[in-house]
Amino acid sequence: MNEPASRVHSTVRSRVHGTVHIVGAGLLGSSIGLGLRERDVDVTLEDLSPTSLALAADYGAGRVRAAEDPHPAIVVVATPPDVTADTVERMLATYPSAVVTDVASVKLAPYLELVRRGVDLTNYVGSHPMAGRERGGAIMARADLFTARPWVICRDGETPAEALALVEAVALDLGAVLLEMTPEEHDRSVGLVSHLPQVVSSLLAAQLIPATEQAIGLAGGGLRDTTRIASSDPELWVQILGANREPVIALLESFATDIERFTEALRAVDEPGSKRKLADLLSSGMRGVGRIPGKHGTSERFVTVTVLIDDKPGELGRLLTELGELGINMEDLRLEHSPGAQIGFAEIAILPEVADRAVTDLAARGWRTL
Amino acid sequence: MNEPASRVHSTVRSRVHGTVHIVGAGLLGSSIGLGLRERDVDVTLEDLSPTSLALAADYGAGRVRAAEDPHPAIVVVATPPDVTADTVERMLATYPSAVVTDVASVKLAPYLELVRRGVDLTNYVGSHPMAGRERGGAIMARADLFTARPWVICRDGETPAEALALVEAVALDLGAVLLEMTPEEHDRSVGLVSHLPQVVSSLLAAQLIPATEQAIGLAGGGLRDTTRIASSDPELWVQILGANREPVIALLESFATDIERFTEALRAVDEPGSKRKLADLLSSGMRGVGRIPGKHGTSERFVTVTVLIDDKPGELGRLLTELGELGINMEDLRLEHSPGAQIGFAEIAILPEVADRAVTDLAARGWRTL
Repeated sequence: MNEPASRVHSTVRSRVHGTVHIVGAGLLGSSIGLGLRERDVDVTLEDLSPTSLALAADYGAGRVRAAEDPHPAIVVVATPPDVTADTVERMLATYPSAVVTDVASVKLAPYLELVRRGVDLTNYVGSHPMAGRERGGAIMARADLFTARPWVICRDGETPAEALALVEAVALDLGAVLLEMTPEEHDRSVGLVSHLPQVVSSLLAAQLIPATEQAIGLAGGGLRDTTRIASSDPELWVQILGANREPVIALLESFATDIERFTEALRAVDEPGSKRKLADLLSSGMRGVGRIPGKHGTSERFVTVTVLIDDKPGELGRLLTELGELGINMEDLRLEHSPGAQIGFAEIAILPEVADRAVTDLAARGWRTL
Repeated sequence: MNEPASRVHSTVRSRVHGTVHIVGAGLLGSSIGLGLRERDVDVTLEDLSPTSLALAADYGAGRVRAAEDPHPAIVVVATPPDVTADTVERMLATYPSAVVTDVASVKLAPYLELVRRGVDLTNYVGSHPMAGRERGGAIMARADLFTARPWVICRDGETPAEALALVEAVALDLGAVLLEMTPEEHDRSVGLVSHLPQVVSSLLAAQLIPATEQAIGLAGGGLRDTTRIASSDPELWVQILGANREPVIALLESFATDIERFTEALRAVDEPGSKRKLADLLSSGMRGVGRIPGKHGTSERFVTVTVLIDDKPGELGRLLTELGELGINMEDLRLEHSPGAQIGFAEIAILPEVADRAVTDLAARGWRTL
């Protein structure tokens, strides 16, 4: 890549020794190739589509694998989920001295399929980088797609330390944060934190289709936040959800039971105990959201200060520059817009102990806070 | 309020002539009082709680109403939803020459209750400012809480033009954007864009309670967005949902039916037609989210550019200052953090036609974009 020197990566040497072969030149495969090439790792590529393959190679993700190329030390399978097991099996047979990993977003189904086929899995380590983009393909690939994202490694008891170390070296080279889980733990976990929210968000957004323009005009930040991920690619999600159906079905059933309990209590809202039941269910949500870690893995709670900003270039920058000058670091920032208005609201999450000072100091500089 | 001159409000004269009396000195009542006082409107206050009343008066939201005070031209009822009808009836009787409005977040139930009691509603106009904060009370009140937010007016056929004009004058004084709806339209609309997302978000977040730390550690922006509003006040929401139960129950049933259809199709994922059914349901969500207007009421789609930023004060400000210098206006901005990482991702939504230039210009200044 011809990008300027990174502000983030230091140019340390690669931990990977030997050639890395990547099967599947889509978003993930190409991004892995780009990232490893930045560290001068030798990368070869293959893809069923000659067009995708040429594009990824042109883009700098590695070179098209040729017969005379050295056998790889590592093979990364980055194909669509429904052909992961096939490809892993083929790679283990083709390069018996290589460690083979895959980056599919479900881990149990391909593993069980390989076991069922009697494939020797000594040299296989499943993995899953928690990274992606709404659009796919090599053209969307970025060397730093995995920077600071969790990368789950599913070793099994039989995995030799050297095999594990090689896969971990790839993830660490790409700047990811390693996490170890069993395939079952992984699939249940992503079912909960990724697959269930996807289905819920999509089906919530689907309720908007018959709405009047007037109703939609009342939409605020709450609706926008809850439905944002509903714009993800349906075909890809059908594959992912299909491959993780058991945990997702169990989660959907639990969620549907709570929806049903809530609806029942709301129907009976004037009967004794119903209001308590509704409040308890909503309070559970409050406790649940409190478990999600903030920045740096903490679950510390922050306070929000809302600042009014004129909607013109540079105003938000000026605000944040001044926050920097005041020594106030933000945990999070959200912009909210109001239809018809030429102003916006910047919601800044900061530590409770600096909140009073932030409001005072911002006011002294002429900012309006809510 | 002792805040410096607003960047946003011009100091135009009030459209309200006469005294405004506010019943209920909580977040909404106090904010209305503060906003009207900024325009030199005469505001009197009452509240069942002497403490809340004194606090709001001290805060500058108006003065405590005394026997010798002039009869108000407008009464704003800003009590909890469950006593709205009682209070409106009492105010119409006490001040027969005044126009009475309320700001409860449901509109049909109090209206029907007033009709049932045979109250003459000539001087009553229901309304609902689409504004609020997670925490309530006078102490959280802000004069500009309603700035650029929709304010729904529920006139009925009998409402005299002068009565309507007075209520609209209050909303316009506070900088709100007027919308007219029937109580039924209003309640169905907020049921869809506010009440349903609240229940869904809360019950989705509730699924996180039994999760392992490991699973929660994989949480990304999708989970955070879908569950953010689950941290709202359960007791207040029980009142709101109870008062709007019929539309909310109908919406919950429609949503639950879609969840059930999705779960059924996922159970049968290997049977012919099931994958198509799953994709169709997810595509409905994609179309639904496309209906939500962006800034300035448009439903134009934007592209997202993600910029890597060091996690230290001033870096984000510097980025946004430079975007301003480059003449690039943002539609939206989100910050994302990765547990364990000292960098963040700023996701900037911009017009498609400036996206390429933004990426090039940012790279030329040393920024890394994804």
